[in-house]
Amino acid sequence: MRYTRVCLGGRAVWGRVEDDAVLLLSGSPLEGDPTVIGTVPLDEACWLPPVVPSVFYAVGMNYPRHIEHARLLGDKAGVVPERPEAGYRANNALTGHRTAIVKPEGLRGRFEAEPELVAVIGRTLRYATRQQARDAVFGWTIGNDVSARAWQHEDRTFWRSKNSDTFKPMGPWIETDVDALAQTTTLRVNGEVRALFPTGDMVFDPFDHLVEITKYITVHPGDVLWMGAESTCRIEPGDTVDVEISGIGVLSNHVRAETARPPATPPERRQQP
Amino acid sequence: MRYTRVCLGGRAVWGRVEDDAVLLLSGSPLEGDPTVIGTVPLDEACWLPPVVPSVFYAVGMNYPRHIEHARLLGDKAGVVPERPEAGYRANNALTGHRTAIVKPEGLRGRFEAEPELVAVIGRTLRYATRQQARDAVFGWTIGNDVSARAWQHEDRTFWRSKNSDTFKPMGPWIETDVDALAQTTTLRVNGEVRALFPTGDMVFDPFDHLVEITKYITVHPGDVLWMGAESTCRIEPGDTVDVEISGIGVLSNHVRAETARPPATPPERRQQP
Repeated sequence: MRYTRVCLGGRAVWGRVEDDAVLLLSGSPLEGDPTVIGTVPLDEACWLPPVVPSVFYAVGMNYPRHIEHARLLGDKAGVVPERPEAGYRANNALTGHRTAIVKPEGLRGRFEAEPELVAVIGRTLRYATRQQARDAVFGWTIGNDVSARAWQHEDRTFWRSKNSDTFKPMGPWIETDVDALAQTTTLRVNGEVRALFPTGDMVFDPFDHLVEITKYITVHPGDVLWMGAESTCRIEPGDTVDVEISGIGVLSNHVRAETARPPATPPERRQQP
Repeated sequence: MRYTRVCLGGRAVWGRVEDDAVLLLSGSPLEGDPTVIGTVPLDEACWLPPVVPSVFYAVGMNYPRHIEHARLLGDKAGVVPERPEAGYRANNALTGHRTAIVKPEGLRGRFEAEPELVAVIGRTLRYATRQQARDAVFGWTIGNDVSARAWQHEDRTFWRSKNSDTFKPMGPWIETDVDALAQTTTLRVNGEVRALFPTGDMVFDPFDHLVEITKYITVHPGDVLWMGAESTCRIEPGDTVDVEISGIGVLSNHVRAETARPPATPPERRQQP
């Protein structure tokens, strides 16, 4: 099944995608067995991120070739992790399929797309075995971990480099019936292939991560785990960026420059320590 | 006014604290003007974190004396920030007033409490001026940024060092009528004062941070901004930890050791890159 959320009269409504329609649902498939209450043609759907998590986990440095690349570029983070570790992204940055990725005014340097597999959690999980972790994944969607490299290097955290508004496109839907780790990830810019790698070529897979995370942390239905990327590529205003994972779908977004920004108000330092 | 949330029959219900009672409310004060629908005596209240944010912002290295201390300990992060920057914490770690802070099994080294002022956002905010940021703060609560130092240093992110379950007590309520930056923060362990500092002695205050964050990010009602601590202290199972901010209240939690952890299942590395 393919589940998603669409915007209807300013509200988020769950839907199931079948052929050329989104069948609108009476509730969340994460919380029960909703009934069909209407339909919207696929090409009229206003796509929302299929889920808004309580906690938004993201894995970095999880593809051997990505790590090697980072190491060659002199990035101190370019070492193979000894064990699964997660970081966080922020919900404000989420945006749906076919919406704009906005490049902030004043951003210099590399502005990049990172094509990622996303696990959507369907059960409350703590102290999980690998089998329990496997059973707790409700389905799979696609993420684009848009990154501003200059900010990533100059800031102490990833707050604006990876979490500015619109930097986290996710969708178009959650596919529940796919062997996600046996697929191929393809990144296209304006129709041209810019990255292509086996989705499952990870140092630690989603179940490894859930086993490790849940030693310390309770994971909840609706939480998402972004799995990192092997390759990335530059994007610029005017581009259309497609992330495809075979067996799941295509997440497509266009890039535009920020507009209508009011004059900047520089922060005052309140005291010199 | 003092607003909070209590647990009633397994549901979260908003309340207003007056004298020795929690007046139960018909809805969220962040979304309207709720009416009183019942009461619970203060000493019977089951306290929840007063709000669960969509994004949980946290500021580090924001008190000059804390930075100086970190620098003396050889921490590379011990430099005065040039501009406001935020990081993130995770909702799974939130816990209410009078609940347990659980020290994980196998954790070695310093396990510490960090007493923090928390701003609770009441309006949607983007490109905020300092005055708009000021107007957008709904009220103030108290946080304890419990931290496991060994993990903080050995991990690549703060995922388990600061976000393990129960590591983020918050409460007991949101105080809407207080000059929060003119108060005093006191940390007590088993009744003994272990830290005491002027709450407002920050490098950058909450409004500075909101002006900077909203250059890139939309902040939403219910989001929280934890403001960092000047001093910290060790805690151990058996301790009672009180964080007091004058004019707001006292957040009290006890510490216990983790129990009933199933046998560990070590993660397998799937491939050697």
